[in-house]
Amino acid sequence: MKKYSIILFLFLSILGLQCFAQTSQPTITDDFKPSTLNQPGKEYPQVNSQGYARFKIEAPQAQSVVVSLGLGGAKGGTPLTKGDDGFWTGTTAGPMDEGFHYYHVTIDGGVFNDPGACNYYGSVRWESGIEIPAHDQDFYALKDVPHGNVQQILFPSPSTKTSRRAFVYTPPGYGADKSKRYPVLYLQHGWGEDETAWSNQGHANLIMDNLIAEGKIKPFIIVMTYGMTNEIKWGGIRSFDITPFQTVLCDELIPYVDAHFNTIADQPHRAMAGLSMGGMETHTITLNKPEVFSHYALLSGGIYKPEEIKDKSKVKLIFTSCGSRENPDGVKKSIEDMKAAGFNAVSYVSENTAHEFLTWRRSLKELAPLLFKD
Amino acid sequence: MKKYSIILFLFLSILGLQCFAQTSQPTITDDFKPSTLNQPGKEYPQVNSQGYARFKIEAPQAQSVVVSLGLGGAKGGTPLTKGDDGFWTGTTAGPMDEGFHYYHVTIDGGVFNDPGACNYYGSVRWESGIEIPAHDQDFYALKDVPHGNVQQILFPSPSTKTSRRAFVYTPPGYGADKSKRYPVLYLQHGWGEDETAWSNQGHANLIMDNLIAEGKIKPFIIVMTYGMTNEIKWGGIRSFDITPFQTVLCDELIPYVDAHFNTIADQPHRAMAGLSMGGMETHTITLNKPEVFSHYALLSGGIYKPEEIKDKSKVKLIFTSCGSRENPDGVKKSIEDMKAAGFNAVSYVSENTAHEFLTWRRSLKELAPLLFKD
Repeated sequence: MKKYSIILFLFLSILGLQCFAQTSQPTITDDFKPSTLNQPGKEYPQVNSQGYARFKIEAPQAQSVVVSLGLGGAKGGTPLTKGDDGFWTGTTAGPMDEGFHYYHVTIDGGVFNDPGACNYYGSVRWESGIEIPAHDQDFYALKDVPHGNVQQILFPSPSTKTSRRAFVYTPPGYGADKSKRYPVLYLQHGWGEDETAWSNQGHANLIMDNLIAEGKIKPFIIVMTYGMTNEIKWGGIRSFDITPFQTVLCDELIPYVDAHFNTIADQPHRAMAGLSMGGMETHTITLNKPEVFSHYALLSGGIYKPEEIKDKSKVKLIFTSCGSRENPDGVKKSIEDMKAAGFNAVSYVSENTAHEFLTWRRSLKELAPLLFKD
Repeated sequence: MKKYSIILFLFLSILGLQCFAQTSQPTITDDFKPSTLNQPGKEYPQVNSQGYARFKIEAPQAQSVVVSLGLGGAKGGTPLTKGDDGFWTGTTAGPMDEGFHYYHVTIDGGVFNDPGACNYYGSVRWESGIEIPAHDQDFYALKDVPHGNVQQILFPSPSTKTSRRAFVYTPPGYGADKSKRYPVLYLQHGWGEDETAWSNQGHANLIMDNLIAEGKIKPFIIVMTYGMTNEIKWGGIRSFDITPFQTVLCDELIPYVDAHFNTIADQPHRAMAGLSMGGMETHTITLNKPEVFSHYALLSGGIYKPEEIKDKSKVKLIFTSCGSRENPDGVKKSIEDMKAAGFNAVSYVSENTAHEFLTWRRSLKELAPLLFKD
């Protein structure tokens, strides 16, 4: 790694949480367009080419309307101003990071969603979502290529006494030839999200379709299920018990998937990855169950240490990533340590992103070609 | 049909829109529980065993919070009252019909959703949803039976120059044996809804899983896609042009489904059904394309007349249904006419329901055993 990169990362890390604290008023380009995540036909929220977001919400008798995005938590978001027409409008004080952001609207002290935006499950609620177009958005765009399917399955879970939901991405052409079998990636969401996150806000299916169409990966199946099997309260993650989820995943979901889909049902062809809390789960479960998974990936979700892994021969890949506004040096250092210890280990840092979904979309794009190479 | 039934239907039809206009104050049973459609962990909205709904929404500085449900459109819904804790609470003035209802919350003159409820696409927006437990809810309950999958597909649509989304229900065991092929029902949503409606608020997949587990039907595939291919504005349905949707359905989606799924790809094994506006589309397309579909079903979506059908030999089933609070006599009369003209025709009236999803869940349950019988 080059020296100027380290300096740049440090600078960005310092800048990260303060990037809206600037007091000078830049010129805002007047090319606002509806966010691509708006509900059909809705004009607002809008975004411009610089990454500013603009909101317009009707509430004629309201006293106060504040959008949670834009100034960082400490500053209380973007307050909107009421116009004579009963609509409240406002623009973020600065440009936002590229990619997907959750937000909500506080109206007269109550938390609601922007009626213009579609909703995405995060922070243990269906939040509003907005998309700042990324310069590299092409890799998760909906294109005229063969598309795989995202299947909702309901699998029996005796340990939790219910049928549980998972989503299964099957690549284009899946099922045409029963003798063709695929490796499987088990891919987990973060804290407060659910099994819808990776296909809704993560576009995992489109990322895969595009990589496959470009011939950059060998097709594989992705399985996404709910990872907060036992309830986690705010601040309660330290007392998190992995056992209930590990049981659902390893004893119930994996056997169901292997019985109902055309998988290669062995350890060398099974990977686990997760973002944030899903990384913590991946870390714990892969170490607990070396006979189940061979490829491990943590996306903004911690690191592996060489001494944690008992049998090096069972691990085919260690992948660790984060946004440049997170802890890139820690991630890279840990991967250097894993390489020095003889592991096939790869790190990835997403430029100019924080603990958000563009980091994880990019991480999946980088991870996919490294999986199941032999 | 027995005479007292006719009198009962007339009475209910008259009662229908006025069932909340009563001024006497009935005793409200204090057994309120969170609606089954609430977001995870949310206590409100709640429903009781009589069908009353109770709301609790935080908005400490608001001047006015009104829920759109409860008193009928003319009376303006259920106004909530602010408590000292900053929460607005209120209960519907009367019991609601069993089943699923869309609603929203008007806060200080702006339209938002209840932060406690999950969202469902209806009225051309993501609305809040609430479920009044139905006495017959068992038929769409999530049970410990083999479950089929709901697959999101993205199919190429040259006529609309994009990849379009559809959901495909495949029955339990689908794909295990490539030589096993299935008939297909194309099932359309109503005005202002989209392709998510039949599996989200309709529970079409669970209805099918349960009917199959009970041995009441032969398994078939269901395909659900977006039917408002050309935009329909409020009041604009009279000028609706069927051509764009008919092209997507018959020239693009059906060939894609037949190429990618194990279907019996012929007219005798292809049905079309739709609710409300989807019934209007079904009516038009089945008459335009007698060589494509053999089983026709209109759920709260109009009627067929014998003289509309040119070749009786091509039609295997005419099914027409509605809620008892809609136009049951018209529906039944039309089916009598079809029978008299020699058609295999069946009507169904859902008791004590209006133009809402419980009517259509029940209609699907009644329709499914009549499809593809030979």
